[in-house]
Amino acid sequence: MKPIRVGLLGLGTVGAGVAKVCASHREELEEKIGAPVELAAVVDKDTTTPREGLDLGSLPFSDDPAKILGDPSIDIVVELIGGVEAARELILKALEGGKHVVTANKALLATHGAELYAKARACGRMLAFEAAVAGGIPIIRAVKEGLAANRVNSLYGIVNGTSNYILTKMTDEGSEFGQVLKEAQARGYAEADPTFDVEGVDSAHKLQVLATLAFRTAVKFDDIYVEGVSKITPQDIALAREMGFRIKLLAIAKSGDGALELRVHPTMIPEDSPMAAVSGVFNAVFMNGDVVGDLMFYGRGAGQLPTASSVWADIVEIARRLASGQAAVPQDLPILGNKPLQLKPFAEVRSAYYLYVLAKDQPSVLSRITGILGANDISIASVIQKGHQRSGAVPVVIMTHVAREGDMGKALQAIQGLPVVESGSARIIRIEESE
Amino acid sequence: MKPIRVGLLGLGTVGAGVAKVCASHREELEEKIGAPVELAAVVDKDTTTPREGLDLGSLPFSDDPAKILGDPSIDIVVELIGGVEAARELILKALEGGKHVVTANKALLATHGAELYAKARACGRMLAFEAAVAGGIPIIRAVKEGLAANRVNSLYGIVNGTSNYILTKMTDEGSEFGQVLKEAQARGYAEADPTFDVEGVDSAHKLQVLATLAFRTAVKFDDIYVEGVSKITPQDIALAREMGFRIKLLAIAKSGDGALELRVHPTMIPEDSPMAAVSGVFNAVFMNGDVVGDLMFYGRGAGQLPTASSVWADIVEIARRLASGQAAVPQDLPILGNKPLQLKPFAEVRSAYYLYVLAKDQPSVLSRITGILGANDISIASVIQKGHQRSGAVPVVIMTHVAREGDMGKALQAIQGLPVVESGSARIIRIEESE
Repeated sequence: MKPIRVGLLGLGTVGAGVAKVCASHREELEEKIGAPVELAAVVDKDTTTPREGLDLGSLPFSDDPAKILGDPSIDIVVELIGGVEAARELILKALEGGKHVVTANKALLATHGAELYAKARACGRMLAFEAAVAGGIPIIRAVKEGLAANRVNSLYGIVNGTSNYILTKMTDEGSEFGQVLKEAQARGYAEADPTFDVEGVDSAHKLQVLATLAFRTAVKFDDIYVEGVSKITPQDIALAREMGFRIKLLAIAKSGDGALELRVHPTMIPEDSPMAAVSGVFNAVFMNGDVVGDLMFYGRGAGQLPTASSVWADIVEIARRLASGQAAVPQDLPILGNKPLQLKPFAEVRSAYYLYVLAKDQPSVLSRITGILGANDISIASVIQKGHQRSGAVPVVIMTHVAREGDMGKALQAIQGLPVVESGSARIIRIEESE
Repeated sequence: MKPIRVGLLGLGTVGAGVAKVCASHREELEEKIGAPVELAAVVDKDTTTPREGLDLGSLPFSDDPAKILGDPSIDIVVELIGGVEAARELILKALEGGKHVVTANKALLATHGAELYAKARACGRMLAFEAAVAGGIPIIRAVKEGLAANRVNSLYGIVNGTSNYILTKMTDEGSEFGQVLKEAQARGYAEADPTFDVEGVDSAHKLQVLATLAFRTAVKFDDIYVEGVSKITPQDIALAREMGFRIKLLAIAKSGDGALELRVHPTMIPEDSPMAAVSGVFNAVFMNGDVVGDLMFYGRGAGQLPTASSVWADIVEIARRLASGQAAVPQDLPILGNKPLQLKPFAEVRSAYYLYVLAKDQPSVLSRITGILGANDISIASVIQKGHQRSGAVPVVIMTHVAREGDMGKALQAIQGLPVVESGSARIIRIEESE
């Protein structure tokens, strides 16, 4: 039987994992595919540095993508070079050249997904991306196929392992963000430039991809509200614990009243909720479908082999179809529904809040703050006033009932402007109790 | 476009759910399928009792399966009549008649799966069964496709909602098994005859189906060790809690040294393990794959709509292929590997144990029991001896290190035979710490 030939663009951490799994699991992969499968060629801009634990043998290895894109014998192109523009061009060329494509590139899908899905449809080729969201967790399949009969009501994801590792360490050890970040970098859990991970951008990329699938609607990446974990303090975490909450960086999507809300931010969730138990570098996605009810998927969201596991799941699915003469199934791509959901303006989003203020210890301070909240239609659930933190400053913590984001923004600005409030000390963390 | 026509065999709880979802979600289903879909006929032995919330309208509804099996315009048969022999014959006939089949029948698959998979392969038809294991959780897809590049090392399932509800209630309220069972029956969480659920048979059915897929090997249902939860006492649960454990009914499959072990029994697991948090009627499946590492899937394991969600996931997948002219993908069936795994004899299984004995309070009792354990190569991790329970009887609880099941069986028999041990009081609960 004619072998299925795979071209690998990018031999970084995940690319090397994909090559390793091909060598170590070939027999099982071929049994599942129903045909031989082989790496046909590997391309990377770095062709000299040895990759740990990987021997490419006599496999063609160059820095020239044309060696893959121009080879008509290659059926499936795996794009693992990362970045946006170069990857976009390579994938478009591969599809136009009649190849099926597997990618783990969430940044690319989040910003140019619509173009790529349309191109794959037009070319009658498959574009698969299980590895783009939550690493080894087969969440893309679950949403596309397992939940096919559901309207998704809500989706909550812990989808960035770096942020979750840092928050878990801060929670367990009471340490500062900066210190834990350094440790995470030393252990390889955070990049040298961690901005995308700790500032929520990576989570927002994944939310865009998941929400496009789950809500069958076009989502503009720039419309997603994004806030990261770098401003969370050990004190926030300790206060949250006191009140029975954990702080997690959540990617949230909810639909209701014909509108969709999308946001990434640190979130207080009840300590006994299933998501609160997701620790360290693990990822989890919690979903509520109108037919199936609550579902949660948990596993390793990153790493060489977990991500390679998802890349191979896609290769096997495409290869199995090729082997049985069934190539193009355009419905497998994200479906943009006939009734696109409107994105809810962020000011209209409703949430409960934790409000932290460092105030000069004057008898009037609490009444001033609560007065501002009341004037902005925000009602108070509870107040915690702690002893002096340092000369003349006392932390005031207020938990609110559900309120409008726009109202809270106005209130926060007014509170910041109070002379009794220490400059720049007021901040909020959103609370989700329903999940 | 020619509509995809579905025949529904069985209009019980789940069957009615399948019909309801068809009515309520038709637009989305058709968008995902890429063609119209319609219920063509419904068959049930009871054609008179009204089904709550369901109006079949002018849909052909009879008690004659030939109305579906004999109708060449019907593409997909959904079997939801339950039971084994009649369902087996109907499915075989449907496949022979060129129809694709969707079933939720774990008892049938566990006992006659090999025959049905072979028939589907021979007929070039699809046989799908997402709803047979863990209700609404898309675990079958995850194992078949998401984990395609993995050798599965181990699998732990909480796959019977009735048992998990009962154990959760017993844990939360300290109540007796019999009392909680009655409550569960009153609330519809347990059948009038709960034997299959509480004695582990239903869990073993699901384990057979999952393990066949996950380990790509033939599994004889009768070779699975099965023990239910009916003998668990509030005292066992309280003692487990004292030592940091929860008791769950686990379906366990592990591979190693070329052999597979399969068992269903009440199991003590650490209270901080993800499975320990799975409460009430919820199900979860925890898996370890050699490439992806740990994964867990959580959701509703039963109920009209969650199960219907999985039935429709299968219908949509088959219908989408039919709509695009791609019907038969025989690799989608469980693959029996080229190297079938041997089943490990239960006596060779290794586990740690909780041993409970009600002993006459004599100074010699502990030395006699520990002597028997030692003579059978079982070493002791800890001993708890409580005060008198009733005149002259004292509970002795011993936690052992990992030992052979066969050795523990012999030791238990010898301990039962001690004159200082109250007749019939000695019992064990297995402990899993690794998961």
